[in-house]
Formats: sequence, structure tokens, C-alpha cells
Amino acid sequence: MKRFEIDPFIVMDIIRESRKYNDTIHFEVGEPDLRPSPKVIDAIKEKAVESFGYTESKGLLTLREKIAEFYKKKYRVNIDPERIIVTVGTSGAFNLAFNLLVEEKESIAFSDPTYPCYKNIAKIFKIPNLSIPVDESTNYQIVPEMLKKKKIKCLLISSPANPTGTIYDKKSLKNLITYCEENGIYLISDEIYHGLVYENFQEYSALQFSDNVVVINGFSKYFCMPGIRVGWIILPQHLVRRGEILQQNMFISAPTISQYAGIAAFDYEYLNYVKTVYEKRRDFLYNELKEIFEIKTIPQGGFYIWVNSSRFSDDSFSLCRKILKDIRVAITPGIDFGKNKTNHYIRFAFTRKIDHMKTGIERLKEYLLKP
Amino acid sequence: MKRFEIDPFIVMDIIRESRKYNDTIHFEVGEPDLRPSPKVIDAIKEKAVESFGYTESKGLLTLREKIAEFYKKKYRVNIDPERIIVTVGTSGAFNLAFNLLVEEKESIAFSDPTYPCYKNIAKIFKIPNLSIPVDESTNYQIVPEMLKKKKIKCLLISSPANPTGTIYDKKSLKNLITYCEENGIYLISDEIYHGLVYENFQEYSALQFSDNVVVINGFSKYFCMPGIRVGWIILPQHLVRRGEILQQNMFISAPTISQYAGIAAFDYEYLNYVKTVYEKRRDFLYNELKEIFEIKTIPQGGFYIWVNSSRFSDDSFSLCRKILKDIRVAITPGIDFGKNKTNHYIRFAFTRKIDHMKTGIERLKEYLLKP
Repeated sequence: MKRFEIDPFIVMDIIRESRKYNDTIHFEVGEPDLRPSPKVIDAIKEKAVESFGYTESKGLLTLREKIAEFYKKKYRVNIDPERIIVTVGTSGAFNLAFNLLVEEKESIAFSDPTYPCYKNIAKIFKIPNLSIPVDESTNYQIVPEMLKKKKIKCLLISSPANPTGTIYDKKSLKNLITYCEENGIYLISDEIYHGLVYENFQEYSALQFSDNVVVINGFSKYFCMPGIRVGWIILPQHLVRRGEILQQNMFISAPTISQYAGIAAFDYEYLNYVKTVYEKRRDFLYNELKEIFEIKTIPQGGFYIWVNSSRFSDDSFSLCRKILKDIRVAITPGIDFGKNKTNHYIRFAFTRKIDHMKTGIERLKEYLLKP
Repeated sequence: MKRFEIDPFIVMDIIRESRKYNDTIHFEVGEPDLRPSPKVIDAIKEKAVESFGYTESKGLLTLREKIAEFYKKKYRVNIDPERIIVTVGTSGAFNLAFNLLVEEKESIAFSDPTYPCYKNIAKIFKIPNLSIPVDESTNYQIVPEMLKKKKIKCLLISSPANPTGTIYDKKSLKNLITYCEENGIYLISDEIYHGLVYENFQEYSALQFSDNVVVINGFSKYFCMPGIRVGWIILPQHLVRRGEILQQNMFISAPTISQYAGIAAFDYEYLNYVKTVYEKRRDFLYNELKEIFEIKTIPQGGFYIWVNSSRFSDDSFSLCRKILKDIRVAITPGIDFGKNKTNHYIRFAFTRKIDHMKTGIERLKEYLLKP
């Protein structure tokens, strides 16, 4: 395999294309339009002057303590801040995790559909990867039966999931972790959409069930600041020093001003407001989209809806291109997320205001439903 | 090779150790103590509110245009901003470059001594690497003769060099680039210390001699803001799209607020002041250190002095540890930079004020020279 034979991250290309028009409606962007807590802006202004040096490779201790406190408050687990490495976005955390956990010729597994960068980062590090097809019958989750007889060293799951918005409930997560521990499989839990969980659903951190899992999260979704490029990884104790060495060499440290922004972002009242906003948007978009498309799962968390578009086309990639070109509505085709019937699916993000989405829905209905 | 069997970046550990004492004198830090232009701080405050989203993966166009303008002004070369990718520090640029240029089983070469992360990043990507021993006889530069009969796909040079402070003059750089082009070797030129060049010396960008080289630079040294974690890579046209795809997957984009800081940092009057400050520090430290150690090359650029410490010990690592412990003067042992007699060498950085360095020199003279 040539090193650079990795797929483009299609949504990034769509974003660029969509910006050519003034009146595009954006359902493609996995990026919050809400700003973070006003405290973050104050912190940036206040700390600007002292933010030009590197921090320790693992990140500012104050930030790691804030993160530990978050786990205490939200999940009632005690995490030693020494086990936390502040990374360059969750992207930086995946770069570390894949290197730390998987040796030569060992492989990593994730579901199909899933976040496209997983596969691509694995390819960059020449790690064989295995896609496990999932569908609505297991709520788009990986269950232990799917792993039987598979030789994998590492399993990566995300909950709430991108693009399906589904969540591992307590029992299914616990079962999967137990299976992994019993079979010598490292579990990486991508928890980036935690906090954005709706109605009666609840998210669980893998750390509630084991100290030997690797948990990744960051400030890009719930905390509304993807552009600061800060995430974190929580490692089992025996991997911390190796993680730190990798971080030193690959990144030196995460951006300093962004780390101060992170410290200020744990404004729990504001975070609750963020969730409320997304919940309203989800309700709106779900109710509208189900009049147009078949939807097999209501999104339990995150900010995406995974819709079946096969009543209009068996090639959702071309459909999305056509929709963007003809009515300037940007949506992400399923193919960005895997090969498991993804040409029948489209991902809608509810990351824009309801009024904005309304215009898009009107255009879609006019375009797709009118005879 | 196990993926994580890479060396720690020793200077980072020393920095941490040195911070345990209140009165440590810092010669170890390759990090400017000067702040960037005041315009940068204004820009951060002004742009904070609009800096929470991602930018295009290649970076803000305005920043790429500023960078192109820098090449026009400083080196009189025209660079299409489309050939520039804004990276997460120069670390991010090396991650991209190594992946883009070197296929499986091909190798990359650099000098010994050199910046330790080169070798470590190569190891992370499982790229075989070849160290080419250099010494004062070629001004610590790689010359074409050293590459004869060596099977390498890529050569990475830095000028001004870390840790030796030496510079490729026009003729030697041109010769080396010609040799590489004739022999199918990609040349990566790390130009991070450009701007910090003293007396009658002058630095040349590899782009002045060829469009097929890969040039890496960033805001961490001359521009005085390592903590923002922004650098850039300039690629030959045919590698740009692959570079963009890698950037999307490994990093998404560089931190947004830091990119705005970068735009404001091209304050040429201020940059000239920065250089003047370092030149005075270099003169001071060089004159003092040559009374203690043997120094084979006066630093022509950068902010390091590479001194021979063998009159005191054949094990500069232990010597540095002892000096830090006994008199709280932090210096980086040669071993961080390679294996080529590096146990006889120590690297001093002149990144602190002259008064601060004076105290360190007094302690060193008392400790090393007094009978």
C-alpha cells in the first residue's frame, strides 16, 4: 500500500464546495454553530499575553485537573490527572492511541458505518483495519458475537455514534468491555459527543466499567469549539509514559491559548443550555426529515441524523452532489462513513439554527417530493 | 520494532525537572522568551469570538497569502499560496512530509547531530532512517560525497541547524539540491531558524534553487510563539492534494485563533528587533562559554551554541544532570541530538536575558573552573 493512498475526508471537500455559494443551507457540517461559554472568550483575552510558550507535553495541569473533575461530576469516577494527556484535538488523540495500542501486523476494528478518519489514520500508520458491519438490528452497535473468531488487538467504538446518533446502553457497553478484557482486546471509547444526549437516553463512559480502557474526548462538539484543536486521552496507567513520549515527538504539546480556553469551557450551566438547543433542533429536523426519507433510528445523541435515501437513488453520493448543485443544500453522502450499504444513506447534521434548516427542508421537499 | 520504542525527547524531561527549583538558570530551552509583536496580542483579542470553528484544512487563505508574501519579500521567490499547507506546528509538517515522501522500505536521512524529533517521527511511521555523521570539517553540513552509494529516498536538512547553529551557504545548498534532484532524492529543508541569522551570514531558502523541494517553517522561533502550534509546509505542486488529504485525516486543520495570530506576526520591524536581541545574546554567551569550553563553530544562526565538554567529562549526559542538581543550571546534553560523539557535547540555548545568563555563567565558572 502506498502511504498516501487514503481516502479524502469527503465532508471537508463538500464544505469547501458549499462555500462557493452565498445561500447554501448547511446540513453537512459536523461543527457546532453555537459559541462556547462567554467565559471562554474572557479567558482567551486575559491569557493571550502569557500563551506563547509551550506547555508541558501532557498539557497544563490545571486543565487536566478540570478534566478529571468533569469525570467525577458527570460519571462519578476518579481519574488521576496524571493519566490524562491533552491532545491536538481528538485527531491527535487517535494518532497517539493507534500507535500506543497496536503493534506491527496487529489490527484494529471499528463499525461500518463510522467516522471516516478512524480508517484513514489506521492506514497512515499502516495498521490493518477491520470494518464490522452494523445496522439497526443492534442499534448500530458492535456486540461481542460480531467479534468472535476475529483476530483483533484493538476495538474502537463511539457512542453517541457518528453518523447514526445511537448510544450504547449500560448493559451493552459493560458486556462489550468485559468481552474485550477477557480476550486481550484494547477498547478505545470515542466519547466526543457525550453531553449531547437527548430525552430519556443516557451516555456512559467506558471508564465507569474499567480502568484499562482508553477514553478519548475533546472540546469540539459539546463544548462548541472545534477550531481550538484540543482534546484529551485518558490512558491506563501503564501506557501513560509511552503516551507522553509519543506526544512529545509528534506534537510537542497542544496549543497553549486553546488549553486556557479549555479550562474556562467547563461552565456547566452553559453546557446545559447547549444541550437544550440541540435537542430542539433534533426534534425539528427529525420530524421534518421523516416526511421525506426513511429513518431507522431516532438520534439518541450527537448531532446527526442518518437517513435512508434509497427511495430517491441508489447512489447517495451523486444525489448529494446533485442536491448541492441544484438547490444549494449541502449534505454528506453515506459513502464517507464506510461501505456497508452507505450508498443508500445520507447524513444530516443539525448544527445550524432552526430557521436555516427550515429553508433547507423547504428546498428539499420542493425538489424531491413535488411531482 | 515495537511502535512505541522511541526515545524520549530528553530536553522536555529536563525542562520539567528544572522547573522543580525556583532559581534554575535556563540554557536548555529552545523556546524564545521574547513575546511576539504586540499586533499578535491585539489580533488574538479581536478574533477570539470568531475563532471557534475549523478553517479549511490547508489553513486560512489570508495566512497562506501572508506566508507567500514572506517568501517574496525575503527570498524573492513566487510561491502560489495553494502550495502552502498550514500545519500544527512544524511537528505537524514533519508528520505530513514523512508520510508524503517516503514509501514502504524506503529510507530517510539526516545529519548526526540533529534535532531529535526527526528520527523519532520516522520511527513512529516505521520509516528506516539513516544518520549521516557530520562535524566541523564541513561546517556540520551534509555534502553530496556523504550520500554516494547510500540508498535513500529523502534527505532532511536544517539550516541554521539545531544544535550546531551552522548555515548552508549558497553554493553548498545549491550543490546539495542539484545532487538530490539528479539522484531522485526528495529534499526537505527545515527552515525554522530562518530570520535568526547573525553578522555577515545569510540564510537561503531551498525554494530559491528548486520548486521540487519541500520547505518547512513556522512561528515557533523567529516569530516567538511556539505555544500557538502553527507552522507551514510548502510542497511541490504534484504533492499538494495528497498533503491536503493527509492533513484532513491526521489533524483536520491547525488551530484557528493561532492562525489569526500568525497573520499578525508578519510585523517586519518587530522581527528585526527580535533578531537584534538574539544577536546580542549570542555575542555574550559565545564570548563567555569559550572561556569554559572548547567551541568549534561560532553560531551563524539559530539560538544554540554547541560546546565540547570533554575537558570535564566524557559523559555529558551525567555532567548535565550533575550541573542541574548541584548548581541549578539547566543545559541539554549532546546525546539528545544523536550518537556521533555527542557524549562529548552540550547544547546551550541563548533564549533568556543576558542578566539571567550571567548568573548561569558565574555558577558554571565557579563550579567547573575553580580548583
